Amino acid sequence: MEVVDAIAAAIQTPGVHLLHRTSDWDHNRSVLTVAGEPEAVLAGLFQAVRVAAERIDLRQQRGVHPRLGATDVVPLVPIDGISLDECALLARHLGQRIGDELGLPVYLYEAAATRPDRRNLADVRAGEYERLVEEIHLPQRQPDCGPAAVGPAGAVIVGARPFLIAFNVFLKSSDVAIAKRIARTIRESSGGLRAVKALGLLVDGQAQVSMNLVDFQITPPHLAVAVIEREARLLGVEIDRSELIGLIPQAALLAAAAHALRLPALSSNRVVEMAFQQAIDTGIPDPL
Amino acid sequence: MEVVDAIAAAIQTPGVHLLHRTSDWDHNRSVLTVAGEPEAVLAGLFQAVRVAAERIDLRQQRGVHPRLGATDVVPLVPIDGISLDECALLARHLGQRIGDELGLPVYLYEAAATRPDRRNLADVRAGEYERLVEEIHLPQRQPDCGPAAVGPAGAVIVGARPFLIAFNVFLKSSDVAIAKRIARTIRESSGGLRAVKALGLLVDGQAQVSMNLVDFQITPPHLAVAVIEREARLLGVEIDRSELIGLIPQAALLAAAAHALRLPALSSNRVVEMAFQQAIDTGIPDPL
Repeated sequence: MEVVDAIAAAIQTPGVHLLHRTSDWDHNRSVLTVAGEPEAVLAGLFQAVRVAAERIDLRQQRGVHPRLGATDVVPLVPIDGISLDECALLARHLGQRIGDELGLPVYLYEAAATRPDRRNLADVRAGEYERLVEEIHLPQRQPDCGPAAVGPAGAVIVGARPFLIAFNVFLKSSDVAIAKRIARTIRESSGGLRAVKALGLLVDGQAQVSMNLVDFQITPPHLAVAVIEREARLLGVEIDRSELIGLIPQAALLAAAAHALRLPALSSNRVVEMAFQQAIDTGIPDPL
Repeated sequence: MEVVDAIAAAIQTPGVHLLHRTSDWDHNRSVLTVAGEPEAVLAGLFQAVRVAAERIDLRQQRGVHPRLGATDVVPLVPIDGISLDECALLARHLGQRIGDELGLPVYLYEAAATRPDRRNLADVRAGEYERLVEEIHLPQRQPDCGPAAVGPAGAVIVGARPFLIAFNVFLKSSDVAIAKRIARTIRESSGGLRAVKALGLLVDGQAQVSMNLVDFQITPPHLAVAVIEREARLLGVEIDRSELIGLIPQAALLAAAAHALRLPALSSNRVVEMAFQQAIDTGIPDPL
C-alpha cells in the first residue's frame, strides 16, 4: 500500500482530481480513476507511470490478474467536452512521452491502436510480462513507442475507449451453472446484448453474472438488469442484488432513473443540484 | 409574459440562480424556482415579491388556480447544507421584511407557521383574495406580519417545507374512474402511502394519477410508480408513461436508479460527474 500511496500522490498533479481508488489483494492490482482537463491529466498519468516503474519490479510481482507491466494499462475516457478520437490522439502523445522519457515499451490499444491486432486489450496482454520478455524482439511484438527491450517495469498499454461500466448481478442461488447460462444468453459474443461482456461466476458461494458494459449508450445497465431478471425468472431464480465496481456516468444514472420512473426521458437540468451546477457554470460569476 | 419577465429579472439578484420557470395560461400562474446561498435567495425573493406587487392587480387577475395575492406563495426548501428549521427561520425573516417594507399582509405556513391552523397551505388560501378582502379585519385572519389591510396586490404566504415532487402517471386508459380509484388507494389521506397526495384526472382524454410527493425521503417517486403499476395491473390497466413537473432532487434520482439497477444503495460519489464536482469543491484550488 505504501507503493500505491506513492503512485496516488504522484498522479495528483495540479488540476488532476482523484475520483476513485481500489486495491485488490488477490489481484495484487490497484485501479486509480482521475479526471481533469486533458493536459493536466496527461501530466498526472505520466508521473504515475514514472513512479510505478521506479517502485514495482515485475520479476517479483505476482497476482491472479494478468499484467504486462508496473503500469499495466492506461485507458483515456471521454467524459465531457471531448471526443473519443481526441482521447485517442492524447493517448498517442502520452505513449510517445512514456517511451521517450521513461524508456519503457508502449503498446497502443482500442481507439488509439495503430494495428487491428492491437485493438483488443486481452490480445495485447496475452502471455503477460513473462512472455513479453522472451518475445519483444519479434516483429509482431515491436512496441508502438519506446524501446524493444523489457526492464523490470515491463511494458505499458495506453489507449482510449468509451466509459466502461463494471457491474455484477448476484442471484438468489448457489448454482454457478445458472449464472453461466444467463451470461451466455446476454453476452454479445454469443448473440446476446450488444456491447455486453458477461461471465457466470461463483462468488462467496453465490451465483453471480459479472458484466462489462463496454458502451452504455448501446446497452445501459438498467436494460442488462431487466434482461437478467427475465432470464433468471425463466430458470426459476431471482436477482438478489447488484454491485457496481468503480464509477457510473451520469447519463447512465439518468437513464436508469427514467426507466424506474417510467419517464420517456430525464435530462440533467431537471435535477435540482445539476440544474444549479449548470446555472453556476454557465451563468454570470457569483460575486459571493 | 412581460410581467413575468420583469419578475424573473428582479428575482435574479447577485448569487441567485434561476433553475426553472413555468407559466400556465389556464392557471394564469407562473412558478419560478431559484437557488443560492440563503442571504442571496432572500434578497432575490424580496425583489420578486416587490415587482409582482407593483405589476399585478388582484382585482383584475383571473385563473383556475386559487391565489391569495400577486405573489401567492413563497416556499423555502432546504437543498444542501441547511435544515428545514433554518429555512423556517429564514421564511419568518422574509415575511417580516415583506410586511414592514412593502406593507403587504403576510401569512406564515408549514414549517414556518406560528399557529397550527396555518400549517396547511390550502387552509391559509381558503376563499382566496376575494374573501380575504372581506375578512382580514377578523381576529382569525390577522396576518403574521404586515398590516391587517388588503390592497390590490393581496397577501403573501411565506413558509418552509421539504422538497415537493410533482409527478403524474398516465395510464393506458381513457377511464377516469380507474385513475380515481388508484389515487384513492395510494394517497395518505385514505390510508395509502405516507407523504403522498394523489388525484385521479382525465387529461387530454387519458386517465392520469396526479401526485404530490411531499416528502420523497418517506415515499420516493419510484416506489409510488411501482405501487401504481401493481394497482393498475389488478384493474387490468397498464402505465403508459410518467411526467415530472418541475424539478427532482438528486437524492430521489439516485434512489430511483439504484432501484432500477437492483443496487442496495448508490451514493453520488460513485457517479463520475458528481465525484468530479465533489473533488473540485473539496479539493485544493485548481490552478488552471
